[in-house]
Amino acid sequence: MKRTAMLVLLAAMPALAADPAPVAYPEGYRNWTHVKSMVINPGHPLYDAFGGIHHLYANRKAREGYRTGKFPGGAVIVFDLLEAKSADNTVQEGARKVVGVMHKDSTKWQSTDGWGCEGFKGDSKTERAVGKNAATACHACHTQQKDKDFVFSTYRK
Amino acid sequence: MKRTAMLVLLAAMPALAADPAPVAYPEGYRNWTHVKSMVINPGHPLYDAFGGIHHLYANRKAREGYRTGKFPGGAVIVFDLLEAKSADNTVQEGARKVVGVMHKDSTKWQSTDGWGCEGFKGDSKTERAVGKNAATACHACHTQQKDKDFVFSTYRK
Repeated sequence: MKRTAMLVLLAAMPALAADPAPVAYPEGYRNWTHVKSMVINPGHPLYDAFGGIHHLYANRKAREGYRTGKFPGGAVIVFDLLEAKSADNTVQEGARKVVGVMHKDSTKWQSTDGWGCEGFKGDSKTERAVGKNAATACHACHTQQKDKDFVFSTYRK
Repeated sequence: MKRTAMLVLLAAMPALAADPAPVAYPEGYRNWTHVKSMVINPGHPLYDAFGGIHHLYANRKAREGYRTGKFPGGAVIVFDLLEAKSADNTVQEGARKVVGVMHKDSTKWQSTDGWGCEGFKGDSKTERAVGKNAATACHACHTQQKDKDFVFSTYRK
């Protein structure tokens, strides 16, 4: 087989076995639409992973997904997790723990039903908590929500 | 004095003694920038007025105010207060209690340092909690923050 033909074949192969494409840091998400918030306290089964106060943000395409139940390509959802500081009968936001991202692109993330995911540690835009492990670290749990396009949150009016 | 001249004079009089201009419902604020959030629990001195979970939102001009410390005319800040439901080691958002609004317009709300304020009860866009009482219901407390253009909140990064 000629080298050119081989390269064409390789390029056409499905990427299922390869590492997933990296998910970009969601620049500007603090100006996106705030979907909802929640505090997870010690004693909750998800406390180790998601303890604190979190806010969900949606870009314009993700807003469409929350409205219709079907998230189009380019939809990005951010899970912004901060420490929850309890004092003087208040709960206030503390340091950022992680910026979680779900990004819909059925071509890039075919093996995880069209969703790429990542967690950017603290205030870092480069330090990744998920990397190649999206299938186990994110999707394994989100498959419960298959009927809702793999998204747990709903838009709070 | 002729009647026309009298009307002109009346129209030119400062509106200091008159009722404050009404503050409009902040249409579309759920797509504005989320500034910060906080939970106020029973036992807090402001619990009766502001108990629950609240989110602050800023329109584009208010974003400028949070950045520069000086809020331009047209800046609107929304204080979105929801019930806080504690269960199973979580705090979740409940029904809306009030949509509080601060609107900057130095001409309209001269006697309260340029800020108009209102509270829209629950999910209503018409039922007003403040009305003519902005000076006592809002501004009396916000004058503490004169050095910060009468705004308590700061933008959370």
